[in-house]
Amino acid sequence: MKTAVLGVSSSKFGELWDVSPRTLVSQTANEVLKASQLSIADIDAIYVGNMLSGILGNQENLGSFFAEELGANCAAFKVEGACASGGLAFHNAYLGIKSGAYDRVLVIGVEKMTDHKPDEVASGLMGAGSEEERVSGITFPGLYAIMARAYINKYKIPKEYLASVAVKNHYHGSLNPKAQFQRAITIEKALQSTMISDPLTLLDCSPISDGASAAVLVNEKNVGGKNKPVWVIGSGVATDSLGLSKRDDITSLKSARLAAIKAYKQANVKPADIDIAEVHDCFTIAEIMALEDLGFYQKGKSGKAIFEEKLTLGRSKELVVNTSGGLKACGHPVGATGVKQIVEVVEQLRGKADKRQVEDVRIGLTHNVGGSGAVAVVNIFKRAKDQ
Amino acid sequence: MKTAVLGVSSSKFGELWDVSPRTLVSQTANEVLKASQLSIADIDAIYVGNMLSGILGNQENLGSFFAEELGANCAAFKVEGACASGGLAFHNAYLGIKSGAYDRVLVIGVEKMTDHKPDEVASGLMGAGSEEERVSGITFPGLYAIMARAYINKYKIPKEYLASVAVKNHYHGSLNPKAQFQRAITIEKALQSTMISDPLTLLDCSPISDGASAAVLVNEKNVGGKNKPVWVIGSGVATDSLGLSKRDDITSLKSARLAAIKAYKQANVKPADIDIAEVHDCFTIAEIMALEDLGFYQKGKSGKAIFEEKLTLGRSKELVVNTSGGLKACGHPVGATGVKQIVEVVEQLRGKADKRQVEDVRIGLTHNVGGSGAVAVVNIFKRAKDQ
Repeated sequence: MKTAVLGVSSSKFGELWDVSPRTLVSQTANEVLKASQLSIADIDAIYVGNMLSGILGNQENLGSFFAEELGANCAAFKVEGACASGGLAFHNAYLGIKSGAYDRVLVIGVEKMTDHKPDEVASGLMGAGSEEERVSGITFPGLYAIMARAYINKYKIPKEYLASVAVKNHYHGSLNPKAQFQRAITIEKALQSTMISDPLTLLDCSPISDGASAAVLVNEKNVGGKNKPVWVIGSGVATDSLGLSKRDDITSLKSARLAAIKAYKQANVKPADIDIAEVHDCFTIAEIMALEDLGFYQKGKSGKAIFEEKLTLGRSKELVVNTSGGLKACGHPVGATGVKQIVEVVEQLRGKADKRQVEDVRIGLTHNVGGSGAVAVVNIFKRAKDQ
Repeated sequence: MKTAVLGVSSSKFGELWDVSPRTLVSQTANEVLKASQLSIADIDAIYVGNMLSGILGNQENLGSFFAEELGANCAAFKVEGACASGGLAFHNAYLGIKSGAYDRVLVIGVEKMTDHKPDEVASGLMGAGSEEERVSGITFPGLYAIMARAYINKYKIPKEYLASVAVKNHYHGSLNPKAQFQRAITIEKALQSTMISDPLTLLDCSPISDGASAAVLVNEKNVGGKNKPVWVIGSGVATDSLGLSKRDDITSLKSARLAAIKAYKQANVKPADIDIAEVHDCFTIAEIMALEDLGFYQKGKSGKAIFEEKLTLGRSKELVVNTSGGLKACGHPVGATGVKQIVEVVEQLRGKADKRQVEDVRIGLTHNVGGSGAVAVVNIFKRAKDQ
């Protein structure tokens, strides 16, 4: 059964202190239903991607929670895989359609983080790490700093290459009215920002954010209406150890490489066929590794390409990466991120990305990672011919 | 794509203070792989059903956590829907096979509850309730007591009918070496046990438990080996409000009725075709409602049938319910329960249930509920002809 994305929608990402998770999801879901020309009664199943509702909100029946809020009695599930929860919810929603069990599915990614104390959030996020890492007191900036050091030592790249990821994504974020940070930065500013965990400075790190994103998936019999379908042509998931200490190589994510192989094979496309990609830049080093894990560059080579603005909107003729601003500038409400990536790719494939629009995009990819690489999901999308 | 259960396995249920969740799952998963004549490398995806790892254990990447423990790099997900998490994980694993994305899938249900303080567990479990219920301080025995009172008032049944659910399920549990409580009780003992929340006494309530259960699902191309397949012929999920106050009727669960309609339709069977059922008897009143919601009895009629031992092993010629001992006597490690129900039904359909074996079983059903009925999943299984 061929599967298409019909409608997509995202809330503003940022510090949304004036809305509850309930309101945030309700607004976003109603927008996506309207965009899909459907009502909630048309939906067969709701897949919610979320990581922290249990730890931070003591709420562990989140599928039903949002089904009730939306006035539905349909099937509902929460799918959890740390910061990849949104992408994994989408993957299972896609399988729900492909199986023939469901005709029309609503995927919601949501996280509400900024209402909580920073140490509670940091502790909650370490729920995605290994036990050894958690008890040692390390947090994610430290884990990615270890990977950044190993990468810099191995491939001898200057710190400017890391900073250039932030510069590119902040530039893209400056064009995105939904982004948490809508301002461009310079390499100098990135390098001079507060040191968080050497070599990562503040502007190497994605923020703590609130936000919700949603998509409606349908089978081929249910395409139609004002939105041309965007076809899902591949979706792959793979895992690796939770902790860094058990990996052969910490300058690359095995989970992402394996997930990409599956997705490319299903989609029958090569990395060179991809026109746009939203990748999981929770830290700048993560985007550098992602571009290599996804086969766009050889190991050690992607940083220079980013520095030379080869992946920047308006500069690239081949591949533009993180037009939404990425996790870095658009924000990273962890359960929402994987769905927001899909929202951006679908809008680009439809030519609806306004100031961020990349010319003549045909195939787009999303890359969503949980923890420091314990799980990764890669989805590939293709626009309908007459879009 | 036709889907079959190949192997099943459960740990002992009870207070398992000497094993970690890691060991519990590792042992159970290795048993189920052995029973399925597969190795972990043959598995394409792992679906974990669990509710409380985040709230009680600050662990929120549970799919990857167990994939690592088992030495896998395959896809892995946690599916959460309160006490229905196990059944919902199974449902999504089933759709994963049906979609053609996965050939062989491992489903694990697990919960480790008795290591934690009772008030922490009670608070965590209320993560499945509505906000109004949570802030009012009510817990699940109170919610089910409200339903029991409403039911008793409406249908004028004696408390002996409730007690007879416990008597039946404790009798079945006495025959199950994996059950938490392996002792028969009497109606008098049940009625005289400590009052928990009027009209529910201690023996109307399922216990707090630890345990893990697992099943391997395969598509029709991968059946074979020593185990004859048990076919999955229907799987339906539906939802209702989290809280009781928003429901039209609190003497029946709408989510269960809707889920059953879907499952029966898919399976093309009627309630009268079901030979055995494992139903969600978190409290005795829940089994009484379940038997009516599933269409086995008219409203108000099931309690008398249970009291008259019409659903008891060795007495019934038509339908035997909760041969495992149910949640009541086998125990209720919440994320494991939905998978344990499937383990029991599959073993019965294979004639491998030892002292609990029901004669000539052909079709079995599982009914797994989250919260006080916010979500329900009904699965239907059929034995291969030559089993």
